[in-house]
Amino acid sequence: MSMPGISVELSCDFAEAVGRATDALAAEGFGVISRIDIDEKFRDKLGIDFRPYTILGACNPALAHKALSAEPGVGLLLPCNICVEQTESGARVHIVDAESMMASAGLDAVESLSELGRDAAARLERVAQALAE
Amino acid sequence: MSMPGISVELSCDFAEAVGRATDALAAEGFGVISRIDIDEKFRDKLGIDFRPYTILGACNPALAHKALSAEPGVGLLLPCNICVEQTESGARVHIVDAESMMASAGLDAVESLSELGRDAAARLERVAQALAE
Repeated sequence: MSMPGISVELSCDFAEAVGRATDALAAEGFGVISRIDIDEKFRDKLGIDFRPYTILGACNPALAHKALSAEPGVGLLLPCNICVEQTESGARVHIVDAESMMASAGLDAVESLSELGRDAAARLERVAQALAE
Repeated sequence: MSMPGISVELSCDFAEAVGRATDALAAEGFGVISRIDIDEKFRDKLGIDFRPYTILGACNPALAHKALSAEPGVGLLLPCNICVEQTESGARVHIVDAESMMASAGLDAVESLSELGRDAAARLERVAQALAE
């Protein structure tokens, strides 16, 4: 059982993986507009140690604006999440499948939204490819 | 066509709606761990005016910890989004349907995750009820 989306294993350390993911997103027009270091929340709120795990919220403003203009509720799917977690051999990056998220919310029935989902998914796939190189 | 989730219409202004949503989330154990004023991003990045629209990222640390411990990729669905947008008569709050998000990612096949999704969804439904009162 695993989440839909793309996972990429990196041999660099956690902080470098976050930086590489941020750069690869920027190259595809996505800014990181939120960053949640969830391991810090677990430490602060629960007193539990967790491996470094960061959720980056990535947003391509032009795509987001078109999507929100077509369907106000689509903010529930924004931003596109990219998660970076520390592993024993380096770091793993999880990248959301924007097209399947859109489809599973039933929004692929709207042609303009379906197209935006495909566009975002194609960009995020190129982010994964860039990270895997 | 509209997103799965709950929408609540409020007659108060936008800023008060954000405050009321934040308080209602806190009462159900969710902290707001990210806030994206997407209208500001559109103004800064695209030079486009958009009505006030804020995406609150809500997280119940105990539920999130259990979910991430069961499935590392589940961070792609975190935090739970609550969107507040200004309307002509006040504000509208969109609340994600955590259970259907989990199901559409295929994670409801994992009993522990399915249970967490139901728990989060029940809490968020109470948030909606509190806001509607």
